[in-house]
Amino acid sequence: MDYVNGPGRNHLFVPGPVNIPDQVIRAMNRNNEDYRSPAVPALTKTLLEDVKKIFKTTSGTPFLIPTTGTGAWESALTNTLSPGDRIVSFLIGQFSLLWIDQQQRLNFNVDVVESEWGQGANLDVLASKIAEDRAHTIKAICIVHNETATGVTNNLATVRKILDHYQHPALFLVDGVSSICALDFRMDEWGIDVALTGSQKALSLPTGMGIVCAGPKALEATKTAKSVRVFFDWNDYLKFYKLGTYWPYTPSIQLLYGLRAGLDLIFEEGLDNVIARHGRLGKATRLAVEAWGLKNCTQKEEWYSDTVTAVVVPSYIDSSEIVRRAWKRYNLSLGLGLNKVAGKVFRIGHLGNLNELQLLGCLAGVEMVLKDVGYPVKLGSGVAAASAYLQNSTPLIPSRI
Amino acid sequence: MDYVNGPGRNHLFVPGPVNIPDQVIRAMNRNNEDYRSPAVPALTKTLLEDVKKIFKTTSGTPFLIPTTGTGAWESALTNTLSPGDRIVSFLIGQFSLLWIDQQQRLNFNVDVVESEWGQGANLDVLASKIAEDRAHTIKAICIVHNETATGVTNNLATVRKILDHYQHPALFLVDGVSSICALDFRMDEWGIDVALTGSQKALSLPTGMGIVCAGPKALEATKTAKSVRVFFDWNDYLKFYKLGTYWPYTPSIQLLYGLRAGLDLIFEEGLDNVIARHGRLGKATRLAVEAWGLKNCTQKEEWYSDTVTAVVVPSYIDSSEIVRRAWKRYNLSLGLGLNKVAGKVFRIGHLGNLNELQLLGCLAGVEMVLKDVGYPVKLGSGVAAASAYLQNSTPLIPSRI
Amino acid sequence: MDYVNGPGRNHLFVPGPVNIPDQVIRAMNRNNEDYRSPAVPALTKTLLEDVKKIFKTTSGTPFLIPTTGTGAWESALTNTLSPGDRIVSFLIGQFSLLWIDQQQRLNFNVDVVESEWGQGANLDVLASKIAEDRAHTIKAICIVHNETATGVTNNLATVRKILDHYQHPALFLVDGVSSICALDFRMDEWGIDVALTGSQKALSLPTGMGIVCAGPKALEATKTAKSVRVFFDWNDYLKFYKLGTYWPYTPSIQLLYGLRAGLDLIFEEGLDNVIARHGRLGKATRLAVEAWGLKNCTQKEEWYSDTVTAVVVPSYIDSSEIVRRAWKRYNLSLGLGLNKVAGKVFRIGHLGNLNELQLLGCLAGVEMVLKDVGYPVKLGSGVAAASAYLQNSTPLIPSRI
Amino acid sequence: MDYVNGPGRNHLFVPGPVNIPDQVIRAMNRNNEDYRSPAVPALTKTLLEDVKKIFKTTSGTPFLIPTTGTGAWESALTNTLSPGDRIVSFLIGQFSLLWIDQQQRLNFNVDVVESEWGQGANLDVLASKIAEDRAHTIKAICIVHNETATGVTNNLATVRKILDHYQHPALFLVDGVSSICALDFRMDEWGIDVALTGSQKALSLPTGMGIVCAGPKALEATKTAKSVRVFFDWNDYLKFYKLGTYWPYTPSIQLLYGLRAGLDLIFEEGLDNVIARHGRLGKATRLAVEAWGLKNCTQKEEWYSDTVTAVVVPSYIDSSEIVRRAWKRYNLSLGLGLNKVAGKVFRIGHLGNLNELQLLGCLAGVEMVLKDVGYPVKLGSGVAAASAYLQNSTPLIPSRI
Repeated sequence: MDYVNGPGRNHLFVPGPVNIPDQVIRAMNRNNEDYRSPAVPALTKTLLEDVKKIFKTTSGTPFLIPTTGTGAWESALTNTLSPGDRIVSFLIGQFSLLWIDQQQRLNFNVDVVESEWGQGANLDVLASKIAEDRAHTIKAICIVHNETATGVTNNLATVRKILDHYQHPALFLVDGVSSICALDFRMDEWGIDVALTGSQKALSLPTGMGIVCAGPKALEATKTAKSVRVFFDWNDYLKFYKLGTYWPYTPSIQLLYGLRAGLDLIFEEGLDNVIARHGRLGKATRLAVEAWGLKNCTQKEEWYSDTVTAVVVPSYIDSSEIVRRAWKRYNLSLGLGLNKVAGKVFRIGHLGNLNELQLLGCLAGVEMVLKDVGYPVKLGSGVAAASAYLQNSTPLIPSRI
Repeated sequence: MDYVNGPGRNHLFVPGPVNIPDQVIRAMNRNNEDYRSPAVPALTKTLLEDVKKIFKTTSGTPFLIPTTGTGAWESALTNTLSPGDRIVSFLIGQFSLLWIDQQQRLNFNVDVVESEWGQGANLDVLASKIAEDRAHTIKAICIVHNETATGVTNNLATVRKILDHYQHPALFLVDGVSSICALDFRMDEWGIDVALTGSQKALSLPTGMGIVCAGPKALEATKTAKSVRVFFDWNDYLKFYKLGTYWPYTPSIQLLYGLRAGLDLIFEEGLDNVIARHGRLGKATRLAVEAWGLKNCTQKEEWYSDTVTAVVVPSYIDSSEIVRRAWKRYNLSLGLGLNKVAGKVFRIGHLGNLNELQLLGCLAGVEMVLKDVGYPVKLGSGVAAASAYLQNSTPLIPSRI
Repeated sequence: MDYVNGPGRNHLFVPGPVNIPDQVIRAMNRNNEDYRSPAVPALTKTLLEDVKKIFKTTSGTPFLIPTTGTGAWESALTNTLSPGDRIVSFLIGQFSLLWIDQQQRLNFNVDVVESEWGQGANLDVLASKIAEDRAHTIKAICIVHNETATGVTNNLATVRKILDHYQHPALFLVDGVSSICALDFRMDEWGIDVALTGSQKALSLPTGMGIVCAGPKALEATKTAKSVRVFFDWNDYLKFYKLGTYWPYTPSIQLLYGLRAGLDLIFEEGLDNVIARHGRLGKATRLAVEAWGLKNCTQKEEWYSDTVTAVVVPSYIDSSEIVRRAWKRYNLSLGLGLNKVAGKVFRIGHLGNLNELQLLGCLAGVEMVLKDVGYPVKLGSGVAAASAYLQNSTPLIPSRI
Repeated sequence: MDYVNGPGRNHLFVPGPVNIPDQVIRAMNRNNEDYRSPAVPALTKTLLEDVKKIFKTTSGTPFLIPTTGTGAWESALTNTLSPGDRIVSFLIGQFSLLWIDQQQRLNFNVDVVESEWGQGANLDVLASKIAEDRAHTIKAICIVHNETATGVTNNLATVRKILDHYQHPALFLVDGVSSICALDFRMDEWGIDVALTGSQKALSLPTGMGIVCAGPKALEATKTAKSVRVFFDWNDYLKFYKLGTYWPYTPSIQLLYGLRAGLDLIFEEGLDNVIARHGRLGKATRLAVEAWGLKNCTQKEEWYSDTVTAVVVPSYIDSSEIVRRAWKRYNLSLGLGLNKVAGKVFRIGHLGNLNELQLLGCLAGVEMVLKDVGYPVKLGSGVAAASAYLQNSTPLIPSRI
């Protein structure tokens, strides 16, 4: 019945779902509860207040929806837009592709701005489109902060600058699935109207909670948005927020307690320290990739992602074989290359509750797998490069000073 | 941080979410996993095969959707119907009301057949409508098997008989949220086209998995159904079923293992024994209610529910006070009266992983609360009536014979 | 692999090991840790400080020994006495018998004061012996505070009075295994020199920690005590206490965190409230027994135990059959009659993390079992008697007011 | 309340307590049970049968004692020997020292054979002593299979050969605390009379169970052994073994289920594969130490330990600082140098449920710490050496082939 046996621990380095901290596993180790008792609303209230901090928003309204990132996307779109609305959307990898597919199936008029996989969103094209759109036919900009398939981080501040420059009222909708709680993310400062993430990403919980945060302009937009929605309708939530019972339908009690424990850990470490840690682990990974003589799928430094690195393998190697072998021989879970980059890249997720030695263990494993599949890597080279950097940059654990 | 402290155990008798067996809690006590490894599909395969057994179907196709019952409803409707389609739907309590509300918001043409709360679906009206509908304008019948708000179980076999009698092709969609795995339910025999439940009900898991099972006619209907759907689209699942990777988006690893453990427990006890146990606990509860001199909200025996009993309180008592006091004084969680019966009934959920002595403890608690709020109950009377029945009818625990 | 399956929860009413609160189960759900890191001593320090409160001592020194109650006994004796030392020990049931057996095998000169099983320690005899012992040949008084086999609580204050009256220097050693944290216990006020309990009793943890508290006179006695001891030697602990590392050998990390959580729960409820709750549950149980027309094994009210009730069955019934049937049919775990009272009594443990409705469920179960085995009990009678009392005496749960 | 927070996982590389597999943590995540129900004996029976396999004995009788390794030692000695008995005991490090201290305090006549720390037991001296002892005054040989303080493995087969050569009847008592379940250990083949281990070592459970296995000659010796013992007396166990109830006092229910899960994992991997894995991890560690230019505390290859490596640091470095820093900066738990080698060595435990990448993460961490404290290590060098070996020698995970 247990499909993951193997001596020792699974080394989970897919870019989601990620490692759950023991404290969260403990907090979730519990029976169900009546969600209509006074206890669950009291707990929920603290969550709604505190979850705003990870979005860096004070004006936003969060929704903790029993769904996945895909559902969170749908929630963001259907609550703010009407069928036929023109939206500008950036296709830069598999997850932006899937979101665009959803946008199209939801009958929006999607103006796709495509980049080569490995590049970031082409914001010059955005600037032109916004500049030209004096009639304000563009109702929303949809952008993935961090494209999980290629390890590319887009510059959200620039998006805001473009919109502001032209005083364009388009809604600014951001998929922060593999960024929020890991990368620098500032909902209020960057004027993001809807931001969203999933519990199983940098928050380091199990899958099952789509966390969506809507700014005032987005809430205003719900009043005119004609997209059909029931399960994902924010108004049902808002009605129960007013009642103080919070839940239009049954939440997962376990995820609520898990979120509480997860937020507590993040605040204890300090959100900025969490982000700095991701910066450290991301850079260490890239240094290893460089030392191995391999290429980062991300084409320019400005797009480097601190949560996932897609590593390009030589053409004579099938990257899927690397992932398969890592799992079969070293109990190491790496991410596959998806779609256009299938077989060409493998991915190292370095987000969530993770520390330096876990990453170094992973890198050592990748080296052995590379050798296994015939790539002439110098064993230890990536670890050496990464640890040279980490040995200089890792701070003492605050609670142990 | 823990909002349910109190000496001893919480007595959870709301009609969902229900008590999780320790074996399931244990099975879920785990880290995340890569859902693209060979392990998760292997596990999923067993789940999809075995979950059909609880629907008593061999021809159905199950979907394990990361959502709640509300989402499962939406999935059933949008995958099989088009906006404007005429559906007959029965309003007999709060949950059928909510489903009808959803049907209307999804732009179906809902032909509502209303009964007094406490009565079952009016199937005579259904018969007339079906008889009259020679043009087959009715595309679907939507019915709640067991109305959780009033404790009313509808007769699904009769619905099938009516449709068959008139050879009417309408789809037969059933909300089995508080029935499947607890009441006699026969998807194939009764010709149900879509049936659904939620993980937190009789399956006794945490909330977060909507389990929907679609028969061949329903799958055929997806090809012409024009309702907009993405997150809930069965086709995305079917595509991944064919690939053998099963998941269009990230499932909850924990719920998959939990479902495996939950199904194993159900099969070990025997599904028919599980249903018989619910019959026993339901009858015992009703005997207690009778002994207390109180009325069952359910007006006729044919509708008695073996998963939840709504107890009508005298008009001089506010049933909410009973629920509040039970929780505050005895750590007993009862269900509130909802909407039309708010303040008038309280509900005892007796579904899921539960045994005789747990129920008797609950009944003893209800007696004390009744006395607390001024109802002149004879303490011990309900327990006596229930245990007189249970002492005669409870079998030995099979694994201990 | 799981030997206790059965629908619903096991009703654990043996007088130990008892139900573990969910909070403690959660706290123990963890990996091992290095016990030589700064974290474990820091945790241990809080435990040693706080555990004294449950003994009501400020002058005592606690030892958290990786052992059971039997080991705690041995620790109490061998650290304070020398072979051949005369001790007065009271035989009133199976557990005092076992302790006396240990005392004899450890080569003490045991002056056994025997009572009929069901009676308390004969303190008149103690008074005579003390009065006569002007030479102070009696080195220690060994007494079980609560005899778990018969449900008899001895009066410790009287023992102290007798010793004080004669200014007798004998050590006062108390087995508090089924009393501490449940019954009124005052180590300092009653001048107890060594008191001990086990983690799996009223503290509601798993088995594995013997908790021994030694007063100043007992510590002084270690200097001259010639009993051979190594594993149980307090001096090894004291040496490590001084070093601030606390552990002469590896402790169970899980039990340390469990104890922390358990103590926190007890202090949150309030130790005196915990004791009052035991008083309430004990009395309710006795009222049920009376209502059933059965006799308490304890012969006088002054000895009634609030942690365990031994119920005498009619001679035509084998009490073991009651225990067997309760387990096989109702998933109810009761205590067997032991030794002299085997087949004659069954025991209801009502100690530890337990509340009113749990007890009432148990009592309802006992009634059904009594009927099963042919005793003409009126079903509901015991529950009625118990709940009449509880409905009047149960306070609101403090955290929910 | 949680003293080990830090982002990511603690890297536990002390030589005990070791990492607990998730499956075992899950199995132990449970409430207490009545240990007198039929379930616990049924479980215990399988444990007693299966635990013999890890000792490689069919004739031995195992005892699962609620104690630590120290208690297991005491059990081995007091059940088989009498005060004043001459025993030959080998002092080669801190743990053999502590056992000898116990032997002396238990009043045996201990003939100590001392070696320099870092060397194995001097078996030449044993041979002489045995040769000379024609009167058979030597009653027992006490030897630590693997000295945890120095990482030295003694040759038990040679001990047996010496005894056999001289047909000497001395009992052969072995501390297998850091060897059994990890190193090649053959109780029957090597004619070991008592062998013992602790649950928190290679078995990878929490602390709290001393596992002692007694051969027929040892059981025979109990009949004449005059050492005082009660808690540790095997006869109390044997009495209950005969009754089929197995337990003279309360066992830890959680540890029983944990042991079941732990044994299942070991048998699934295959005991010989487990031992081979330890061989692999041990050799990899030594290769890293060599690459760092540091010395193994173990002076000759014949004594190299596959469960723990004590690394000698240059005299200008305090090894305690390495341990402290590893914990404070990298969440890495290493073992301190003890007693004679305090400050001079640090220890890497590589036993229990552990795999290659976990070890490589640890080695990468050690490298960074070495640099932190001023040792001019070449970062990556140890990892390179270890992984060059591991990449050639690590088999596929059997369940994933």
